[in-house]
Amino acid sequence: MKEKYTIGLDYGTLSGRGILVRCSDGKILAGAVKEYSHGVMDQVLPDGTTKLPPAWALEYPADYLEVLREVVPAIMKAGKVDKEDVIGIGIDFTSCTMLPIDKDAVPLCEKEAYKNRRNAYAKLWKHHGAQAQADKINAYLEENGMTSLPRFGGKISPELLAPKVMEILEEDPEIYEQADEILEAGDWLTRILTGSHKRSVSMAGYKAWWNQEEGYPAEEFFRALEPSMEHFVSEKLPGEICGIGEAIGTLSAEWAQKLGLSEGIPVASAVIDSHAGVPGSGVQNESQMMLVLGTSSVIVGLGKQPYAEKGICGAVRDAIVPGYYALESGLACVGDLFGWYVDHMVPATYEREAREEGSNIHQLLSRKAAELKPGESGLLALDWWNGNKTPYVNANLKGTLLGMTMTTRPEEIYRALIEATAFGTRTIVELYEKNGLKAEEMIVSGGIALKNPMLMQIYADVLGKELKIADCDQAAALGSAIYAALAAGAAKGGYDSYEEAVKQMSKVKEHTYVPDMAAKKTYDSLYRLYQELGSVLGGSRGIMEKLQKV
Amino acid sequence: MKEKYTIGLDYGTLSGRGILVRCSDGKILAGAVKEYSHGVMDQVLPDGTTKLPPAWALEYPADYLEVLREVVPAIMKAGKVDKEDVIGIGIDFTSCTMLPIDKDAVPLCEKEAYKNRRNAYAKLWKHHGAQAQADKINAYLEENGMTSLPRFGGKISPELLAPKVMEILEEDPEIYEQADEILEAGDWLTRILTGSHKRSVSMAGYKAWWNQEEGYPAEEFFRALEPSMEHFVSEKLPGEICGIGEAIGTLSAEWAQKLGLSEGIPVASAVIDSHAGVPGSGVQNESQMMLVLGTSSVIVGLGKQPYAEKGICGAVRDAIVPGYYALESGLACVGDLFGWYVDHMVPATYEREAREEGSNIHQLLSRKAAELKPGESGLLALDWWNGNKTPYVNANLKGTLLGMTMTTRPEEIYRALIEATAFGTRTIVELYEKNGLKAEEMIVSGGIALKNPMLMQIYADVLGKELKIADCDQAAALGSAIYAALAAGAAKGGYDSYEEAVKQMSKVKEHTYVPDMAAKKTYDSLYRLYQELGSVLGGSRGIMEKLQKV
Repeated sequence: MKEKYTIGLDYGTLSGRGILVRCSDGKILAGAVKEYSHGVMDQVLPDGTTKLPPAWALEYPADYLEVLREVVPAIMKAGKVDKEDVIGIGIDFTSCTMLPIDKDAVPLCEKEAYKNRRNAYAKLWKHHGAQAQADKINAYLEENGMTSLPRFGGKISPELLAPKVMEILEEDPEIYEQADEILEAGDWLTRILTGSHKRSVSMAGYKAWWNQEEGYPAEEFFRALEPSMEHFVSEKLPGEICGIGEAIGTLSAEWAQKLGLSEGIPVASAVIDSHAGVPGSGVQNESQMMLVLGTSSVIVGLGKQPYAEKGICGAVRDAIVPGYYALESGLACVGDLFGWYVDHMVPATYEREAREEGSNIHQLLSRKAAELKPGESGLLALDWWNGNKTPYVNANLKGTLLGMTMTTRPEEIYRALIEATAFGTRTIVELYEKNGLKAEEMIVSGGIALKNPMLMQIYADVLGKELKIADCDQAAALGSAIYAALAAGAAKGGYDSYEEAVKQMSKVKEHTYVPDMAAKKTYDSLYRLYQELGSVLGGSRGIMEKLQKV
Repeated sequence: MKEKYTIGLDYGTLSGRGILVRCSDGKILAGAVKEYSHGVMDQVLPDGTTKLPPAWALEYPADYLEVLREVVPAIMKAGKVDKEDVIGIGIDFTSCTMLPIDKDAVPLCEKEAYKNRRNAYAKLWKHHGAQAQADKINAYLEENGMTSLPRFGGKISPELLAPKVMEILEEDPEIYEQADEILEAGDWLTRILTGSHKRSVSMAGYKAWWNQEEGYPAEEFFRALEPSMEHFVSEKLPGEICGIGEAIGTLSAEWAQKLGLSEGIPVASAVIDSHAGVPGSGVQNESQMMLVLGTSSVIVGLGKQPYAEKGICGAVRDAIVPGYYALESGLACVGDLFGWYVDHMVPATYEREAREEGSNIHQLLSRKAAELKPGESGLLALDWWNGNKTPYVNANLKGTLLGMTMTTRPEEIYRALIEATAFGTRTIVELYEKNGLKAEEMIVSGGIALKNPMLMQIYADVLGKELKIADCDQAAALGSAIYAALAAGAAKGGYDSYEEAVKQMSKVKEHTYVPDMAAKKTYDSLYRLYQELGSVLGGSRGIMEKLQKV
């Protein structure tokens, strides 16, 4: 058969990216990026006068379509392949990024009547306006003994779908009433491209409490939260749930023409952007986990049963890898923490030294920190500068550094912060293992994985697992292209098996990080103290809780 | 009566200082300083070849006599007073700074036979070579249930007399045998000036376990520690103990001529340098406490009964103020901690900002920190960068900082460190109060007291006490001059009453720091958490102890 190709589209916070990928070996033939014309709106609406409250973060949905119209033709042109050989499209998107639309799929914010109404816009994943609504839901879960239900993961975040919808209802009920549907931006894109009303299992499962066994929560649940939401599911969330790597529909004639592709090729159901990194970084089966190291981190592992630990999402099957419950958690700050340290705590002498040797402060600190032995500094940190997601699910928890003396130096603190994030990672991995997950290695992606071997070795030593590095700097986009190849199927030149698709299309680098068992032994002891310190300071009767109340 | 004068001599770690003081009002007419010619020897003996082990710190006793010969004539010349009107000399000295001498009071290190023998030299107060000996003594006290005896204060330090002597015996027993006496450098100076074998109650009480009721520990005690020390007291520590502010003897003809003073004037018994600050800063009676804020701190309070709390010295009466037990403790780092922070943790942007506004980083941070409210930053620190003296008596305890977020800024940490030292100070003050001390105000001296009003206000708020500032930047030397005036007595133009002498000769500044009761309320809550955090992390089964063993 002639070589076939798929398109992977990766919608991030500030821009959308597209790549054209060869199905036989995952080679990326072309790529293009388009920044959103309106960016993230956190001060004012596009009218330039309607101000937004603090913690708001909106986007303008038409920007997403611009990405389609610019990026796809650009990569088709650069890739020089026949449009007949492009056999599918996959999309990943930040989530829960949600918007209200009318019956023709037009976003309400694009209608003259609503363009000055903030609740008519797309609320970005990190929109935090709905904290009060999340608090209300959590109080309800708490009162009704529902926190241990797997779908709620112990405590819910204001970033989920329901709090954002409750916020619309409370602030501007007309928007809620006028919305024919309220949906994820990823689902809106597949709707636009195919006309299909189906929705992604990925987003429904992780952000809207849907699962295979029970569907969405019942009407009584929503009524109890907010009487006008009683029929929320039947009225605002129509459409079947479509599995991962399945065709949610086929490309319409109109959009085939706009994009320069063939009508009728499958569009895969959308997937949460960080989850698309699972196939994109090469995770084939339950023997591996994915770790994405960015400003924060994402850790995904595969298991055969649903999960109910506090602070871990994993109640829905087939949402990342067919046949598996995928457990998801991560640290609330990783790169952000190291950045905070370098910006606010590193002295002028280090800045000068870095300048003189032609490096940057991260490189200088990493070089100095690499000379230290595990445990040598006597420091121990808790990595909670942005709160703690797992296991405490408490955004009010804070960072701690213990063990300083008059001889403590910046590189020692830098290393202690890195170690703390490794301990935080191990905490999550051990909770996964408690649930039966048995991954022996971890595939790491994100800029830090390539740039900081010192950090990677510490993670290998702390976790006691071999670390591989994804050989793709666009792991999410590649993952979307892989889901597209699955939606196309083997008969069309794609794949029928997830494992086979990943095996052929994703690569890891040759160099791996193997744990040093002597270092691991020291870290085992430090890790126990990290757990003990966390429990003493962060537990529900801990000192941080009391400090919060002073 | 014609105006009379006394001389106060203050021997510090690196230099000796003398001042000439008018008895009627404490006015300082002249002052002079002489650095020790050999400085602190911590690498090599004066022969330039005999190397010293780590943690050693020696001095050369002849340097102390040079100070006498240069400083006293210099201040007599500059002060332009008749030598007949100088009615006494007082001396304060670092302690325990000790040396072995022969029967003619010649230091063994000045004899040809011993000049290459490190144990023949003066061991400076901060000589830490005798840690193993201190450990041995502590183990013995522990095994024999003696840690609660007031004279031992729970746990003994390697800086005391007995460990330093045991070190001589173990390393070079010949030096021990050849020593006619082993004595404090302060006592050696009064011996030189007067020929008197009497010793200071100050140094015997605080550094050699002597007290009025029982004298030194018994022979069995020393025998149990080290058989060859059985007769240590009778053989090496001759001479009666002389009370504070009493004449230990009178100036010899020889030294009267060398110094340009009158033969026969009283020389007061020597006093520990930081304790001389008690009269020198104006502490008249039990209604006041002394706080010296330097690189570390000293806190002295007056009580009517002996004391046995761990980490507080106060078993001997009349050693600082006649009629009182003086409780002494302090923090192991104060100015040192702020210096560490500024040297190693403050970013280049702050360095630039300070330079541009023509201030230094301490000033910049203090100005920014002054704008914060108590508790606003959410930070809480333990001030243990140099270990903790009270109440844990554990040099292995370490600094902690809790409550950091991505928005934490350097001035917030700077303020949290200052608050932590205030909480540490309050811990000591509350232990004093538990022992019946009732001081209502605190007289503060040291450079920080003058330079940092923000810190002073925090201390006032945390302690809930009015803070006064000593109006003398040579409080120790002034204190020695006051003791000299007491040794001379009222009939000679000095004083018979300590309280009257201090009232006339010491001054405090007009401006005082009065606690803000709203701030105190917040600090009361933070202080309780400081105590809880300290107990959780620093207790004998605490996390720091475990971290030490990793």
